[in-house]
Amino acid sequence: MKLSQGVEWMLHGVGLIAQAPDGVWVSRRVLAEHYRLPEAYLAKHLKSLVRAGVLVATPGPSGGFRLARPAAEITALDVVEAIEGSASPFACQEIRTRVPGAPAAYRRPCAISSMMDRAHQAWRSELRQVTVLDIVQMAPGPIRERTAARLAALAK
Amino acid sequence: MKLSQGVEWMLHGVGLIAQAPDGVWVSRRVLAEHYRLPEAYLAKHLKSLVRAGVLVATPGPSGGFRLARPAAEITALDVVEAIEGSASPFACQEIRTRVPGAPAAYRRPCAISSMMDRAHQAWRSELRQVTVLDIVQMAPGPIRERTAARLAALAK
Repeated sequence: MKLSQGVEWMLHGVGLIAQAPDGVWVSRRVLAEHYRLPEAYLAKHLKSLVRAGVLVATPGPSGGFRLARPAAEITALDVVEAIEGSASPFACQEIRTRVPGAPAAYRRPCAISSMMDRAHQAWRSELRQVTVLDIVQMAPGPIRERTAARLAALAK
Repeated sequence: MKLSQGVEWMLHGVGLIAQAPDGVWVSRRVLAEHYRLPEAYLAKHLKSLVRAGVLVATPGPSGGFRLARPAAEITALDVVEAIEGSASPFACQEIRTRVPGAPAAYRRPCAISSMMDRAHQAWRSELRQVTVLDIVQMAPGPIRERTAARLAALAK
């Protein structure tokens, strides 16, 4: 069970975009340089975030990305599921129906499948409690100031 | 993010083994036939469960598997982690240290990494609350009776 590297990249990346001053669109190149990440892989994940309604994109030479809504209204779960999808990591194949004498379809959901689903919902619930604003505010002050200065320079 | 199919197989499989009468060792072949699963793949997962101390194995023609301790003392998490390992699906690469001007090592854990860890612990906690005995008892009565008859026949 593994999450894509893009989850870490984009949780940080969306946090960076959240800190951009009004009117500043953060380009893919700026993001890639900031975290020293491969631009081509970033492109794929940025597209997923636009598709999921977390980011909006503007094309052109001064183009880039900004948040689609305020940072306090985007949860970590929104970012994670934009990259990974929302399916449970447990794909139930209903092997209980293969047991000799078992019904072809049970009336009740399988206890194992329900348990795995509860675990997945507990995981999602933790990620829903943290917003992009929280992530930004949890970074150390000096780091935030340096990032702000860097993003302000882009506005010029 | 995907769990191995072996997780479903072995949650059911350990439940079946838990229902065997005293002195009956459930063979890999019986397990494979019961759920119509490929024996070769089962072998790998059964080995992992023995290694993790969930099952004990006995070799030979009447050999097979039984629980290493009472079903009420084996959690679903024990079974899942025997198959999948206990590592978090989020592998933090500390990309925050790559940011220009960032320290090579931070004093505090990354907020993103801590959040992903809390989510993983919430997932584990759900699976720790369900025992193999619970799984057995949640199966419908008629199915349990048929399984018991089948396992009793093995003892003869």
